[in-house]
Amino acid sequence: MLGTFTFENPTRIHFGQNALESLNQELPKFGKNVLLVYGGGSIKKSGLYDQVVEILKANGKTITEDAGVMSNPTVDKLYEGVERAKAGNVDFILAVGGGSVIDYAKAVSVSINCKEDPWEKYFERMEDVDCEIVPVGTVLTMVGTGSEMNGGSVITNHAKKLKIGHVFGPNVFPKFSILDPTYTYTLPTYQMVAGLFDIMSHLLEQYFSGTDDNTSDYVIEGLLRSVIHSARIAVKNPKDYEARSNIMWTATWALNTFTHMGKPGDWMVHMLGQAVGAYTDATHGMTLAAVSIPYYKHILQAGLPKFKRYALNVWNVDPTGKTDEEIALAGLDAMADYMREIGVVMNLTDLGATPDMIEGIADATFILKGGYKVLTRDEVVAILKASL
Amino acid sequence: MLGTFTFENPTRIHFGQNALESLNQELPKFGKNVLLVYGGGSIKKSGLYDQVVEILKANGKTITEDAGVMSNPTVDKLYEGVERAKAGNVDFILAVGGGSVIDYAKAVSVSINCKEDPWEKYFERMEDVDCEIVPVGTVLTMVGTGSEMNGGSVITNHAKKLKIGHVFGPNVFPKFSILDPTYTYTLPTYQMVAGLFDIMSHLLEQYFSGTDDNTSDYVIEGLLRSVIHSARIAVKNPKDYEARSNIMWTATWALNTFTHMGKPGDWMVHMLGQAVGAYTDATHGMTLAAVSIPYYKHILQAGLPKFKRYALNVWNVDPTGKTDEEIALAGLDAMADYMREIGVVMNLTDLGATPDMIEGIADATFILKGGYKVLTRDEVVAILKASL
Repeated sequence: MLGTFTFENPTRIHFGQNALESLNQELPKFGKNVLLVYGGGSIKKSGLYDQVVEILKANGKTITEDAGVMSNPTVDKLYEGVERAKAGNVDFILAVGGGSVIDYAKAVSVSINCKEDPWEKYFERMEDVDCEIVPVGTVLTMVGTGSEMNGGSVITNHAKKLKIGHVFGPNVFPKFSILDPTYTYTLPTYQMVAGLFDIMSHLLEQYFSGTDDNTSDYVIEGLLRSVIHSARIAVKNPKDYEARSNIMWTATWALNTFTHMGKPGDWMVHMLGQAVGAYTDATHGMTLAAVSIPYYKHILQAGLPKFKRYALNVWNVDPTGKTDEEIALAGLDAMADYMREIGVVMNLTDLGATPDMIEGIADATFILKGGYKVLTRDEVVAILKASL
Repeated sequence: MLGTFTFENPTRIHFGQNALESLNQELPKFGKNVLLVYGGGSIKKSGLYDQVVEILKANGKTITEDAGVMSNPTVDKLYEGVERAKAGNVDFILAVGGGSVIDYAKAVSVSINCKEDPWEKYFERMEDVDCEIVPVGTVLTMVGTGSEMNGGSVITNHAKKLKIGHVFGPNVFPKFSILDPTYTYTLPTYQMVAGLFDIMSHLLEQYFSGTDDNTSDYVIEGLLRSVIHSARIAVKNPKDYEARSNIMWTATWALNTFTHMGKPGDWMVHMLGQAVGAYTDATHGMTLAAVSIPYYKHILQAGLPKFKRYALNVWNVDPTGKTDEEIALAGLDAMADYMREIGVVMNLTDLGATPDMIEGIADATFILKGGYKVLTRDEVVAILKASL
């Protein structure tokens, strides 16, 4: 715990079956004109849309609809949402959906009263918010991104071929988030498994950084053990409430800033995965899975003590008669076995990537510092080739 | 994670060496008339008092002094503090000290504008706050209680022979807390070690409850491993910044409500320890240490799967050739060895308790539900006798 930091997380979480009822406690605290943000038709099919609208109306709210948020919300959609919000004189935003819907809602919340172009200000120039923020509340239906309890927002600009994330401060965090694990039951298996790996990757990308003894690493090991255990149950029985609730809570804490305290973080797996995503349009979590083992094997020597610790504390590798490197590799082998067991995609070829894309993906990969090794472009190419 | 809960923790933490500088960012957010709450002379001796006063003055604050908060703050001191606060027209309270000072500051904060007697309202009748709360900020100098990031406040009424804790809601949590690990360097070893066991006990009293698979238990195992590791270093070298910083951060998260989510909690070790404290005036953490092993051995059969898990995941007990009970007992033996290693008091006799006190201590012990076994009064007596 050698770092100096400020920790603040003001989001109020209502967790558990029927947590939606707490919307009745929350709504009176906020304004009358509500922007109701959601994605496609899944919340209409599940009946959640009707329930939410009923509660909004019972609380005397006027609803402005903002549907059709796509899985990588675009700047064009953002502009449209801001206009809708202004037309509805909106003073509260309720986001019902997964990470994309919530990311988008936050982007709208800081743009309604913004005098400049929000894409340029927040995403291209990464500036702080200096206008009044319209508060956001959320009802989470998909787990993985942690957006329900942090300030992150990722917006895509197709015209400029850019997908940029801004981590806003605590004033942009959702005021409340409603987490009912049963809402996650209906997600198709492929998306569920991709989300499971996304959670794991968030934890690993914080874990594999820093060389000090850090309480965060002990907590991350605990969260990893929890999500690995519950994922094995959930893939066999997606309606196991206990497993789905543990996964939901772990996902929130995997990326709500707590486990990042005092650590630099190594976000190269996300950088590689996002570049792959730009070329293949593959599901986010699967792009992370496809590059993870090759990436970690590539940097293993540079972070050997931590990879050894990972093998021992997360995968219970028996160290008897093994060198440190053998222990560390056995940990990655156990991780790879687990990934196959839950059914993630293990290589880029299966995601539609071809050898001729490698150079382009490498060009699109931002190289970050913070991990055990700062990659060269040649190393990025080598890792991508090993991931095919 | 079978429980339904609301989680909210609005306290902003400034952590690290020289975190006191952030007081300059915080003070402008609050009122001009500050009640400066502290205990004995230790912050004057260390120079912290002068630093804090200088920053308060540089920020244009008018200071009302409220010194002499004792380690078990009394209701008489509370009444006196409320009068001081009213006389100073106080609109902000800055607590500089450990858990007792912060507990006391919270009690004052909810009492200044309270029309009823605060002892009767909050502690005897356990009522909610319905008056305006004067905000509290803290500078932490001793770790263990977690009061810097929760709503707990324990007040002692000597006339009525009562020591009662009230867990207030998030509106009473400190608005900010400043955590500089170097402030903990000067604490005498005996107090440091008592605090180390208090932290461990907070974690264990949450861990040894519930039978579901719960993410909180995995996190608790991580925090336990962290504090055990760092405690061993800190007792040898109290000025090891890394160890002291990990201990400080673990202490905060051991009792800021996060790891209690979805769990009933078993607070019998605190109930036993507090009753011992009323009879012997022994240091809080040491009273917990003296009763812990006898208590846990007594309830071991009722919670055998969890005690086995504790032995394996926290103490790395080798299960080869052992029954579940033998594994569980080996875990408690490892814990006892560790306790002796860091130097806690292992029995009530060394704390000044005598056989003739046992019946009285048993009478003073509140028996709580939530753990693996609800004790009878005879069992309380048996555990206390085994602790002598």
